[in-house]
Amino acid sequence: MIIAVDAMGGDNAPEAVVKGSLKAVNSFDDITLKLVGKEDLISNYLEDQSYNQERLQVINATEEITMEDSPAKAIRKKKDSSIVVASELVKKGDAEALIAAGSTGAAMSAGVLKVGRLKGIKRPAISTLFPTENKPTLILDAGANANAEPEYLQQFALMGQIYAKKILNRDKPKIGLMNVGEEKGKGSKLTNEAFELIDNDKRIDNFAGNIEGRDIFTGEYDVIVTDGFTGNVILKTTEGLAEFMFSLLKDALTSDLKSKLGAFLVKDNLKKMKNKVDYREYGGAPLLGLNEIVIIGHGSSDATAFFNAIRVARDTIKEQVVAEIASEIARDGEN
Amino acid sequence: MIIAVDAMGGDNAPEAVVKGSLKAVNSFDDITLKLVGKEDLISNYLEDQSYNQERLQVINATEEITMEDSPAKAIRKKKDSSIVVASELVKKGDAEALIAAGSTGAAMSAGVLKVGRLKGIKRPAISTLFPTENKPTLILDAGANANAEPEYLQQFALMGQIYAKKILNRDKPKIGLMNVGEEKGKGSKLTNEAFELIDNDKRIDNFAGNIEGRDIFTGEYDVIVTDGFTGNVILKTTEGLAEFMFSLLKDALTSDLKSKLGAFLVKDNLKKMKNKVDYREYGGAPLLGLNEIVIIGHGSSDATAFFNAIRVARDTIKEQVVAEIASEIARDGEN
Repeated sequence: MIIAVDAMGGDNAPEAVVKGSLKAVNSFDDITLKLVGKEDLISNYLEDQSYNQERLQVINATEEITMEDSPAKAIRKKKDSSIVVASELVKKGDAEALIAAGSTGAAMSAGVLKVGRLKGIKRPAISTLFPTENKPTLILDAGANANAEPEYLQQFALMGQIYAKKILNRDKPKIGLMNVGEEKGKGSKLTNEAFELIDNDKRIDNFAGNIEGRDIFTGEYDVIVTDGFTGNVILKTTEGLAEFMFSLLKDALTSDLKSKLGAFLVKDNLKKMKNKVDYREYGGAPLLGLNEIVIIGHGSSDATAFFNAIRVARDTIKEQVVAEIASEIARDGEN
Repeated sequence: MIIAVDAMGGDNAPEAVVKGSLKAVNSFDDITLKLVGKEDLISNYLEDQSYNQERLQVINATEEITMEDSPAKAIRKKKDSSIVVASELVKKGDAEALIAAGSTGAAMSAGVLKVGRLKGIKRPAISTLFPTENKPTLILDAGANANAEPEYLQQFALMGQIYAKKILNRDKPKIGLMNVGEEKGKGSKLTNEAFELIDNDKRIDNFAGNIEGRDIFTGEYDVIVTDGFTGNVILKTTEGLAEFMFSLLKDALTSDLKSKLGAFLVKDNLKKMKNKVDYREYGGAPLLGLNEIVIIGHGSSDATAFFNAIRVARDTIKEQVVAEIASEIARDGEN
């Protein structure tokens, strides 16, 4: 299994990418990683490290796509950027998955323009895991498309079901449709039409109907389907609120001597709590619906996050997620 | 100033309504409250209480609208329900504001069908305050309309500006448009068109452009404009995540003896933290764009929440928020 990694993407690149990759290549003996980026910078972090050089290769790419670039334009013009070179590897069949943690827009453009949409898929979807009381919930689309049609949501439900089965090991994934009320007929024109399509789709096993924002964190649903605008707002609102609450908590635990003493006593458990809502454990968000898997990492990914992204990429290749999506999309949902 | 209160609405009615009303009528000598609902039940909680009986009146209404009723239908059929009788008071001019904490759908229907939309307003908006690092942020629409047009969002910006100035005492309210990226041109067709309308509207003083979900809790924006579908998802996602995190925190602080001891030391500060994100302080969400103010209370409102809702209703009457909205809507935004 060959995985291409954009070694220049993310706030902590290339150091975090290299460290995560070294750990991955030493943990899994069935993968080969191709780290794409500025060879001299990458090599710095490989010196004196022990690893199998055949299974961790560096491929030079000299250009960089920054947050200021227009993603689609940059993908077309900066032909020697790390993400373009990495996605060309996937396009040519020299790698079976791509991991990129720089600009989400650039990763998406590279996915659509280079790796390409699967036949029959109308739009790909960013599929993000959210922590809950027990097992994580997959929400898609978390922002690949700001304008959605009901048919996109139907396909998201199908792709989410496959991913939840194969990668999250959910037996009969329970699927909810994000809405503003639980009763059938509630909500927007988009959700009403999507409800009918999903409900009547014979390929979808366990559609539980409309759900609300507060159902995300209960762990009751394996997959939550929504349009990319709403999904992106959910993702960023969640990040913002979690950050806000941890900052309030920090204030509460440091504002006087008594609290500081208390904080010392609870700090181990608080750390465990923080880990429970830590995005890094999930290893990035797969962009589902393409000819190969593209995993979009969080901009602030550290070595652990990259390691986990590689682990997830390995799982998706092994479990043939793309082939399964292709075959289910080709099947008629009405029979 | 006369305020009609649906005394039967909410999980803790009528006790919490009566207690909050008693406190309000004893705190503000310029208001008269009309508590509408089952007279015998309400009177139970008024016995032995000292208050000015002219300024706290009970108006009998025998029917109840439950969560099972279809809101619009119930408002038309259940003519002797507390919310219908209360909204008729406002319609006839016997009250200048309505407070209702039962079904949000019923409160909205009563608002639109009985109190009526202001001339020129395309759709009313539920306007909800969110806690932030410093001062609260007003988000509208939080769920009055699941389908939106760009012109609605333009009017929401204008109404939000007026409310933030008059009730939240913000000097030159900074307005953000909820979107999936900050650059102009990002997002959906709806947000792109709304951006142009708001940006070109001469009545709007301080439009700061597109914002993202994570900007809600920074306190940088006074008003955040969004469609009712997205706003409702934000509201419920926020409630769900806050609940989830407090439950994780509770687990962290009670899982062993050391933590329990630590929890004892930090509990005062944690309580202050919880109060910071407590919706009850804000006293409900005004439905802006009607002929009078309708304030929708949270279903689990307690006496404090009702007191604050009455306080806010009093402020909106005093500051002539409705008249100001009417006059700004009548003014041409192009000049």
